[in-house]
Amino acid sequence: MYNLLKGKKGIIFGALDSNSIAWKVAERAHEEGAEFVLTNAPIAMRMGTINQLAEQTGSQVIPADATSMEDLQNLVDKSMEILGGKIDFVLHSIGMSVNVRKGNHYTDQNYDFTTKGWDVSAVSFHKVLNVLYNSNAMNEWGSIVALTYMAAQRVFPDYNDMADNKSYLESIARSFGYFFGRDQKVRVNTISQSPTATTAGQGVKGFDGFIRYAEEMSPLGNATALECADYTISMFSDLTKKVSLQNLFHDGGFSNMGISTKVMENFSKE
Amino acid sequence: MYNLLKGKKGIIFGALDSNSIAWKVAERAHEEGAEFVLTNAPIAMRMGTINQLAEQTGSQVIPADATSMEDLQNLVDKSMEILGGKIDFVLHSIGMSVNVRKGNHYTDQNYDFTTKGWDVSAVSFHKVLNVLYNSNAMNEWGSIVALTYMAAQRVFPDYNDMADNKSYLESIARSFGYFFGRDQKVRVNTISQSPTATTAGQGVKGFDGFIRYAEEMSPLGNATALECADYTISMFSDLTKKVSLQNLFHDGGFSNMGISTKVMENFSKE
Amino acid sequence: MYNLLKGKKGIIFGALDSNSIAWKVAERAHEEGAEFVLTNAPIAMRMGTINQLAEQTGSQVIPADATSMEDLQNLVDKSMEILGGKIDFVLHSIGMSVNVRKGNHYTDQNYDFTTKGWDVSAVSFHKVLNVLYNSNAMNEWGSIVALTYMAAQRVFPDYNDMADNKSYLESIARSFGYFFGRDQKVRVNTISQSPTATTAGQGVKGFDGFIRYAEEMSPLGNATALECADYTISMFSDLTKKVSLQNLFHDGGFSNMGISTKVMENFSKE
Amino acid sequence: MYNLLKGKKGIIFGALDSNSIAWKVAERAHEEGAEFVLTNAPIAMRMGTINQLAEQTGSQVIPADATSMEDLQNLVDKSMEILGGKIDFVLHSIGMSVNVRKGNHYTDQNYDFTTKGWDVSAVSFHKVLNVLYNSNAMNEWGSIVALTYMAAQRVFPDYNDMADNKSYLESIARSFGYFFGRDQKVRVNTISQSPTATTAGQGVKGFDGFIRYAEEMSPLGNATALECADYTISMFSDLTKKVSLQNLFHDGGFSNMGISTKVMENFSKE
Repeated sequence: MYNLLKGKKGIIFGALDSNSIAWKVAERAHEEGAEFVLTNAPIAMRMGTINQLAEQTGSQVIPADATSMEDLQNLVDKSMEILGGKIDFVLHSIGMSVNVRKGNHYTDQNYDFTTKGWDVSAVSFHKVLNVLYNSNAMNEWGSIVALTYMAAQRVFPDYNDMADNKSYLESIARSFGYFFGRDQKVRVNTISQSPTATTAGQGVKGFDGFIRYAEEMSPLGNATALECADYTISMFSDLTKKVSLQNLFHDGGFSNMGISTKVMENFSKE
Repeated sequence: MYNLLKGKKGIIFGALDSNSIAWKVAERAHEEGAEFVLTNAPIAMRMGTINQLAEQTGSQVIPADATSMEDLQNLVDKSMEILGGKIDFVLHSIGMSVNVRKGNHYTDQNYDFTTKGWDVSAVSFHKVLNVLYNSNAMNEWGSIVALTYMAAQRVFPDYNDMADNKSYLESIARSFGYFFGRDQKVRVNTISQSPTATTAGQGVKGFDGFIRYAEEMSPLGNATALECADYTISMFSDLTKKVSLQNLFHDGGFSNMGISTKVMENFSKE
Repeated sequence: MYNLLKGKKGIIFGALDSNSIAWKVAERAHEEGAEFVLTNAPIAMRMGTINQLAEQTGSQVIPADATSMEDLQNLVDKSMEILGGKIDFVLHSIGMSVNVRKGNHYTDQNYDFTTKGWDVSAVSFHKVLNVLYNSNAMNEWGSIVALTYMAAQRVFPDYNDMADNKSYLESIARSFGYFFGRDQKVRVNTISQSPTATTAGQGVKGFDGFIRYAEEMSPLGNATALECADYTISMFSDLTKKVSLQNLFHDGGFSNMGISTKVMENFSKE
Repeated sequence: MYNLLKGKKGIIFGALDSNSIAWKVAERAHEEGAEFVLTNAPIAMRMGTINQLAEQTGSQVIPADATSMEDLQNLVDKSMEILGGKIDFVLHSIGMSVNVRKGNHYTDQNYDFTTKGWDVSAVSFHKVLNVLYNSNAMNEWGSIVALTYMAAQRVFPDYNDMADNKSYLESIARSFGYFFGRDQKVRVNTISQSPTATTAGQGVKGFDGFIRYAEEMSPLGNATALECADYTISMFSDLTKKVSLQNLFHDGGFSNMGISTKVMENFSKE
């Protein structure tokens, strides 16, 4: 709509289906004139409909297990080949807790599952940054964004070990963002999004009630996946070149609420 | 350049001269297709060159003392008349400490000066919001931004009572932002900008050394006034509709640094 | 009980009646072996029962309007005389919003009331620190604590302009705390307490429902006035000499909660 | 000195030698009347002098690899046997980065080392909490503290992957602290300590220069290991029953500093 990403090249992780935030980001990036490569884990690709998105946006798909340095190196090398140059923007939208899937309570985790979830949800971001940085694959003033959730700062009991994974992820954004900024003029940020009814999000227990709670708590209501995509586009654009190492709340104001009148009324009913 | 603000109407406070961040915001908003009214305190208008900016951007200037509810009501009423409708964006870029000007140390303030500085720098924002809210003068999904500085969170000894004023200002953004969001779907945020060599900024003691320190601490270097204007444009655009009640650091990463290699090297030299 | 404050001398502001946190601090400080002076505004003294507390703790009462530099200078001078030396600890527990008292909504303040509330609730802390610092009235490793509330960080709609006042107060603790630490080895902190059913707290609209909400949100439940006094004693003791410029949440964990299972259940009932 | 921990029983992890913070905590806990069990990894026990501490404080030592659920279960079971009842306080002071030891840069980690460091430094805390919680081994109003560092919030380039580990650790304190508080009335907090010249701390590159920098930045100077022990004692005592889910900075004020006059002077010298 604005040509905000005209001539920019990107890599987008994590578009599973049309509910995915990454899917919306891809659609919006396409509208804004970007070219990009789509990627997801082989297993996620079988479950989802990413090829439809590729067709719609004129993109190629390169499968990659984001925990595999080999896959990521291949992804980055091929992406530069396909796109004809270095990368301007990257979206990391990957998260999965085996403990959540298996129904293990936070206080009674299986630590192999914990390790697997941490590797997929958090360390994968370090690996992506590692490959991009050491391959010198980003253009100056490029922008890297990972999606996160406020459970990294505050307790949401059902979010389980994803809370700890998101804390680690946000720390990576700061730690690696420093070196990426200092050495290659690339910015790294996380966007902390409202609870969103994606296919992944719906796996969390009591999610519907919680979405309603967040809606009533937020002065502007919950942010949708499409709105998150819009915001992400602004973070990829040249308008935000000096924003780095930040965790940016995109949540209708939820994060700075103590209590809202609506939640209080609802709470007080008996 | 992108038509990001096409058809949008605004009010911009605080453009003194071409060093001002507000000046750059006006220039960029004009480029992005916005129409707006410029305003400043009568005394600031005499010292600066705002009329030149007005001419350049096809804007009208309405003088207003931002501590006067009458002046602000007049400003808002006339702005809607001139612009032919409700307001979409407002920039508050106002700050002044009489204690700083008079050379009073933070530990030895003149409290009349303290009160005056607080009224100008912080309460003025509440008054602006008050008039806009109670006049129902903002369009839905409008955006209001105030500029602030990280001294609101951490100690910068020479920033004096402006630190406390900025804390109060940021609190207003949250407190009033809640009601503005809930009742009128308007977002309110503050942008916490790198130290910037504006005419106002230069009044702070030891400012040059400090700018260099911030430059060496920030992985991406300090953000310029123009970059701040770009970022502000993104906050006025429709890409950021669900960001509210936030204090947004625009500082090349400074705010999340503990120490940089450059500062450490410089510090260690003897 | 532990002789934690044996030989220490203090000044305690804000003990109105036996519901006051300051009252509990005085009782606990007395038990821990401290000697101190009690003070309050002349008008508050008429409404409360401070003389009873003075008798009970063997203390003298010196009335002082905390917005008056003269009164504060007199208070500090006399306190050193009475206690026979410099001061080791000070509690600032003062807050009052005229807008709240008069029923003005946050979006429709009377700015004279706003100024008065700010002066009493926030600037008074700067004045107290000013007199202590410039009179060189504190012993090295002394401790100064002001009570605050989390509305300084997050929105609690009915807390009105006290939210902004508390932000300003907490900023003073950092700004002045720096100079007090650097020059006189004195620490300055704020304690951010659970909503507490003091005589002052009860003035806030919908307070009972909110107390219940906070109770259900906090993993350990709300902190009582007596528990706050215990915590304050620890901050006055020699065990916490290197804690400074901090805002310390004493709230049963509330401040880091996003949602609790109890609140969610209560919210979901229909 | 105060009998603050009279009759309390504890477990203290991580006392390597007399430079260790955990060592000082053990000495101070002993002085305050506590009984406790000391523990460390078998390998750390061979390198250090923990038996001397055990003798000095009348404690028994139970070796435990804190990444082993079996070892931890044995530790907790035996501790209750030895101490004759449930536990009142626990100190987790464990951290180790293989990447740091092997000299791998943050941007070029060996991910097996990353996983090992994360398991030892962060997940070990979850395992400790897990065993204590599921064994119902803590008394009501017990207190659990883990030591951390501000690299969890801000960038200290040489701190390497320990920054991310500490973020994860602090998240565990919140996530598990919620359940421990709600279900067993136990509080869980982290203390974020000044850089300290422990045997472990000295492994970090450029540590001496950094200690001097932190000293000059902090209004009260760096906190020593002994002062950290004092503070930890206050967190174990009954004075702080309602503090939970918090990350408590114990750093002479460093965490809220933007710049100090001393650092600025030193920085500006040429």
